[in-house]
Amino acid sequence: MSDIKVLEFKVTMTCEGCSGAVNKVLGKMKDKGVEDIEISLKDQRVKVTTSLPPNEILEAIKKTGKEVEFISSN
Amino acid sequence: MSDIKVLEFKVTMTCEGCSGAVNKVLGKMKDKGVEDIEISLKDQRVKVTTSLPPNEILEAIKKTGKEVEFISSN
Repeated sequence: MSDIKVLEFKVTMTCEGCSGAVNKVLGKMKDKGVEDIEISLKDQRVKVTTSLPPNEILEAIKKTGKEVEFISSN
Repeated sequence: MSDIKVLEFKVTMTCEGCSGAVNKVLGKMKDKGVEDIEISLKDQRVKVTTSLPPNEILEAIKKTGKEVEFISSN
């Protein structure tokens, strides 16, 4: 299996409803390889600790209808 | 094929970012049977003119991470 990494995404979120929606969608992936989620509304950043590839997380965030961009993997 | 109906959903949206996200996701379904979308942030309502069954629209809105409830079909 893949290593666990911290993936960072830039996500356009304008209120707590926006960040809550992203948190909810990623939270549903906790049984599929998402270990931890850290969301900063102020910084417009979402950090996901996961063994999943960046593209899979990116697609999940895209389905929320928010603008999203992959920034980095540690 | 099914008739075109106006389906009404109650969706928890707290800012224009929230309603914009719902609009974006449903807008992507315009080539799959969604004819028109009307969103009221004030009333927490989403009206979708479509030949698709309510459940299919409900699932798409759920993927945005928003709370959603099917209200009625005309």
